[in-house]
Amino acid sequence: MPLGISAKCAAIAPSATLAMDARAKELKQAGVNVIGFAAGEPDFETPAPIRQAMKDAMDMGMTRYTPVGGTLELRRAIAARLKEDHGLEYGMDEILVSNGAKHSLYTAFQTILDPGDEVIVDKPCWVSYPEMIRMAGGVPVFLDCPEEQGFLPSMRDLEALVSPRTKAFILNTPSNPNGCMWSEAQLRELAALAVQYDFYIVADEIYEKLVYSGERHFSIATFGPEVKARTILINGVSKTYAMTGFRIGYTAAPRDIIRGMNNYQSQSTSSPNAAAQHAAAVALSMPQDCVEEMRAAFEKRRDRLVELINAIPGLSCRKPHGAFYVMMNIRGITGKRHRDTVLTDSVVIAETLLDRAHVALVPGAAFLDEGFCRLSYATSMENIEEGMRRIADFVKELE
Amino acid sequence: MPLGISAKCAAIAPSATLAMDARAKELKQAGVNVIGFAAGEPDFETPAPIRQAMKDAMDMGMTRYTPVGGTLELRRAIAARLKEDHGLEYGMDEILVSNGAKHSLYTAFQTILDPGDEVIVDKPCWVSYPEMIRMAGGVPVFLDCPEEQGFLPSMRDLEALVSPRTKAFILNTPSNPNGCMWSEAQLRELAALAVQYDFYIVADEIYEKLVYSGERHFSIATFGPEVKARTILINGVSKTYAMTGFRIGYTAAPRDIIRGMNNYQSQSTSSPNAAAQHAAAVALSMPQDCVEEMRAAFEKRRDRLVELINAIPGLSCRKPHGAFYVMMNIRGITGKRHRDTVLTDSVVIAETLLDRAHVALVPGAAFLDEGFCRLSYATSMENIEEGMRRIADFVKELE
Repeated sequence: MPLGISAKCAAIAPSATLAMDARAKELKQAGVNVIGFAAGEPDFETPAPIRQAMKDAMDMGMTRYTPVGGTLELRRAIAARLKEDHGLEYGMDEILVSNGAKHSLYTAFQTILDPGDEVIVDKPCWVSYPEMIRMAGGVPVFLDCPEEQGFLPSMRDLEALVSPRTKAFILNTPSNPNGCMWSEAQLRELAALAVQYDFYIVADEIYEKLVYSGERHFSIATFGPEVKARTILINGVSKTYAMTGFRIGYTAAPRDIIRGMNNYQSQSTSSPNAAAQHAAAVALSMPQDCVEEMRAAFEKRRDRLVELINAIPGLSCRKPHGAFYVMMNIRGITGKRHRDTVLTDSVVIAETLLDRAHVALVPGAAFLDEGFCRLSYATSMENIEEGMRRIADFVKELE
Repeated sequence: MPLGISAKCAAIAPSATLAMDARAKELKQAGVNVIGFAAGEPDFETPAPIRQAMKDAMDMGMTRYTPVGGTLELRRAIAARLKEDHGLEYGMDEILVSNGAKHSLYTAFQTILDPGDEVIVDKPCWVSYPEMIRMAGGVPVFLDCPEEQGFLPSMRDLEALVSPRTKAFILNTPSNPNGCMWSEAQLRELAALAVQYDFYIVADEIYEKLVYSGERHFSIATFGPEVKARTILINGVSKTYAMTGFRIGYTAAPRDIIRGMNNYQSQSTSSPNAAAQHAAAVALSMPQDCVEEMRAAFEKRRDRLVELINAIPGLSCRKPHGAFYVMMNIRGITGKRHRDTVLTDSVVIAETLLDRAHVALVPGAAFLDEGFCRLSYATSMENIEEGMRRIADFVKELE
């Protein structure tokens, strides 16, 4: 039969955030001083005890396959953290380790979705959610969460989207790309809907430790056994411990889901990197001061970035509650002209900013949210000042 | 809708080799002295320069996301090795790094197969091939390779299975589970068929360095540009460098396939572990003496294991040409009785051997080959002697 990739694969959009980041890195390698607001990874050094743990793993001979779903050491460390942070009790057969939280999410959708099953997704949303759902044969059903609502859904809108094919809802709080957080009351309403209509809550809690202004993150599985039985909790060490390159994520969920995911993983990837599992166990178990230090630094950067954005005529943003992203409203400059280029939409604005102001950010279109660009403040205060100066100068040049 | 895993996922069989290995490890942890012939991983220590490279990676700050398809450093090392070993030229956009060769294979099938596309698979075959094909919506079409043919196919049988839906053939030489190797003449016939009927050859060359008795492995992509354009070459560092726990595999293939796989990976896993990529680059680039040392040790073990098996009445095996597995013919003991247990098939034989003789091996049924059990000789000579003594004693007790 004809060679070439499948129609199925051709339909997959590449990750726009990674693509933008790659383009910025290319410019940098060519010697251009690019300020990067595009990446979704902490700029901090991985804490020393974690790097030491990787070295220790080599000395201890942790170079072999581990159980597919992760070492007992790491699963115990995950269970202990869930217990300490949220009072949640998970057994060793209710936890699965994967190659990063993205891989945990992907495997979860492959495990729960049959062709045509629906998953309700907040919009704006992280770039990979809709693609992952489609890759598993599912159908993403989008729930509008406009800026005017603080990027949060109306529960009436949510309930209206529930159908007999609704298999899951993706809950991402604090959120990528806009840093919004669900209140306890909203989470309880969502939990009640999940129980009433029988669907899973895929709770992506990767940003749970990056919460500001004294707010509190609630893990939805804590709202009783009926809710826990419907929660697929996803988390990982990448964002909390500046360990993006280690690729360790995890899932805590009912036993049958974990068993299915384990089977899927056994035939598609096997176990994650053995040494990185040890390093992740150390990260989750050690004194957590470094987490608070990084969080506090992110909070200061957030405050400054929000201030700088709102000082530029034509640009604005809400103050995010968590994670390390700001959704910058660009409607005030959309349609204007920079030299010979008409800034028709977020993609053109992001490309023009990169090429002419040497500032990298991600167009809102990547998150299904035209009229915005996402800025990550996982970068130094100096970069934030300089990057926003460049954006301000760029905006001044618009006609 | 009803909770629970999807019908699609429920249909996936767990990896039988990993399951058997896990069961053996459980017994070991309970204090039982189990001799393991089940695992598919070298028992050698990972060579020191590779372990050192992991440590260096921590000092060099290799803790961040890398490009989705692997660092330039590693892709260059892969290209250099393919050039040096086979004279094959691959560009940086024709190579993709994944989380182990299993993940490379999985991603390749997800990338090339649409629902109903057929892949021809030798039988006996590695446990994960049929599952991976099904997970991608494809249909495995089995090609019988009986022991009497040295586990190799007849080319007439192969051609008879080619249909308008044939998208690929999986070539695994040297082979898991039986250690057979394709001759150059057979490979040229296969290459001609791929060109004539337009299908991909997914060439799983993970065991290419483990070849005995002075035989030579041919990489099928070397048979001209028309063949290379139809070859998806899969390899990794796990078996050659005793790096199973590092989880680094790679694909070398035409640009459009690599682009498709890169997209798929960007939405399902992101980049593999950053430090392990550096360690893999060091492994591929350093002096290769350790590879020959391990190969020579495997060859001695093979010779001894084959001798011991053929000395036991009712058991027999062919001498494998590569990899580190022997398919042991158990037809002579099938149907006999051990105490109260009738040894009806390979699964019962493997389970009974584990429980009563404390020897772990994998039933042939896992490789779609009843009448056999697979023994891995990736274990010490002492274990081989002791394990075969136990099997001999077990066979003596049969009635």
